[in-house]
Amino acid sequence: MSYVSEENLCIMADLIRRVVIVGGTHGNELTGIYLVKKFQKFPHLLHRKSLECFTLLANPEAIAANRRYIDRDLNRCFANEDLVNPALTSYEDKRAKQIAAQLGPKSQPKADVIIDLHSTTANMGLTILPSSKHPLNLRLAAYLSTLSPLVRVCYGVQFNQDAPVLRSLSPLGCTLEVGAIAQGVLNADYLQQTELLVHAILDYLDALNQGKFLPVPSSLSVYQIISSVDYPRDSSGELQAAVHPQLQSKDYKPLSDGEPMFLKFTGESIPYQGEDIVYPVFINEAAYYEKKIAMILTCQQQLSLETVDAGDD
Amino acid sequence: MSYVSEENLCIMADLIRRVVIVGGTHGNELTGIYLVKKFQKFPHLLHRKSLECFTLLANPEAIAANRRYIDRDLNRCFANEDLVNPALTSYEDKRAKQIAAQLGPKSQPKADVIIDLHSTTANMGLTILPSSKHPLNLRLAAYLSTLSPLVRVCYGVQFNQDAPVLRSLSPLGCTLEVGAIAQGVLNADYLQQTELLVHAILDYLDALNQGKFLPVPSSLSVYQIISSVDYPRDSSGELQAAVHPQLQSKDYKPLSDGEPMFLKFTGESIPYQGEDIVYPVFINEAAYYEKKIAMILTCQQQLSLETVDAGDD
Repeated sequence: MSYVSEENLCIMADLIRRVVIVGGTHGNELTGIYLVKKFQKFPHLLHRKSLECFTLLANPEAIAANRRYIDRDLNRCFANEDLVNPALTSYEDKRAKQIAAQLGPKSQPKADVIIDLHSTTANMGLTILPSSKHPLNLRLAAYLSTLSPLVRVCYGVQFNQDAPVLRSLSPLGCTLEVGAIAQGVLNADYLQQTELLVHAILDYLDALNQGKFLPVPSSLSVYQIISSVDYPRDSSGELQAAVHPQLQSKDYKPLSDGEPMFLKFTGESIPYQGEDIVYPVFINEAAYYEKKIAMILTCQQQLSLETVDAGDD
Repeated sequence: MSYVSEENLCIMADLIRRVVIVGGTHGNELTGIYLVKKFQKFPHLLHRKSLECFTLLANPEAIAANRRYIDRDLNRCFANEDLVNPALTSYEDKRAKQIAAQLGPKSQPKADVIIDLHSTTANMGLTILPSSKHPLNLRLAAYLSTLSPLVRVCYGVQFNQDAPVLRSLSPLGCTLEVGAIAQGVLNADYLQQTELLVHAILDYLDALNQGKFLPVPSSLSVYQIISSVDYPRDSSGELQAAVHPQLQSKDYKPLSDGEPMFLKFTGESIPYQGEDIVYPVFINEAAYYEKKIAMILTCQQQLSLETVDAGDD
């Protein structure tokens, strides 16, 4: 465990100059797309004394088609081995290589901070998926959590180098997952809340560059991904059940052994079975049916921000 | 106005034998798709003494692709002139001709009643769009409205012969529009409620065939479509605003002159302007962005079921 003081952060922060705000990694998640378009139309909104802010619409063809992707999920195309594999020539593979050339490589990122704006059909509120467990990410997430009770922090399984997601091009930054919002729908309320978070991130970084520390709580609740659960299916892969009505929209709520998880089309409940209380997230996300994910189980952890481990990525 | 007694209905009802339950007219509206699959797997659920019930998955390629449609919206391919136009050869145009050959023609339908199961990202509850103003449809809708406060009845602009929608292949029946449900998502609660409505429809028709009249209220509130409203756009067609947070999810609630309708990305509200109180529906439906519809305005009418006008189609 390495103790990270505000002074250490300040030294690291000297490197934070270039911030990239990404929308449209998925072409039917309109929140990020319209927010980036707004920033492109009114660039003064992103002006901060110590920062250079850039915007990127990551998947233009998918945005035009109002689809998540054209050939394959762009946000699974950023694994290192895929980025250097010339045999991968789908639209999204080519696009990932272009973006990695612009913002990466992961070993020496040109972007200091990447904020990738997503939405989800699950009731995820304002979820922050940090790009790494870097203490700056965590303190930033803790700062954002003071702004809205809807802000929650979710740790992925893979970070940085190992992860195939766009945000992995830089160790600093995060994905924002905002919802519940249907695909192809613009929700004004979430659009405003997402914009507030982006401004808060820029303000935090700008203050840090100037040696100022915006207040953060002394500890942070994070949800660490454990595993995913698929829908019950028959031998041909057809769904046999839906998420149980008692679990629908209950993202981040505790789920205990014996509580209902799925409802079979024939009427029987299928309970969660497990000794540990879990906190399901991404419950019934539309885009995850094809990934065979009905929900993702997490455990809740309380992190002390005084003793964040910076080397546990 | 023609007075329609229960005895008259009973005579008409002599013709009700073949009921067709349709799902997947739009390939990403999973409620109807999974309900039809359930009925296909457990056909005894549809058994009624006096009825022959059939099921149809209307757009198999769109269902496989988890998209609303492949080439064009199947539920706009059933205009009479399109059905006889050999120049229309898109996948959905061909599919519409096949379905019309199976269930139609409109002048002499082979299906006595068509129930077309849809979902919507708008907060429409359990909306019934009757195929015509036929008194049987209205009494059936009134019966269903006694089963759940979420049931509401919405009149289209066009009926039967003139309408390009699948349900227009028969004057009897309706579309069910259930929501809010995101595209590509299965919602167990709405799935159950939709199944209950289908069973109630079959029970009502079966009883009618046997000269029994399930109880209906003496009047029915219906929402008559007046017009549609597009999103504010710039000269290139780009959205300039989203549905106002105060109006989002307020389908079927009254909207008066001066109340907020849209919120511009620059922060200003755009109010509804009109002398008449309107009741917006299909507010922020994902599939209607491309149709240039942000919402559909209706007026509320109270129909007496004792004096339903059967000739006003």
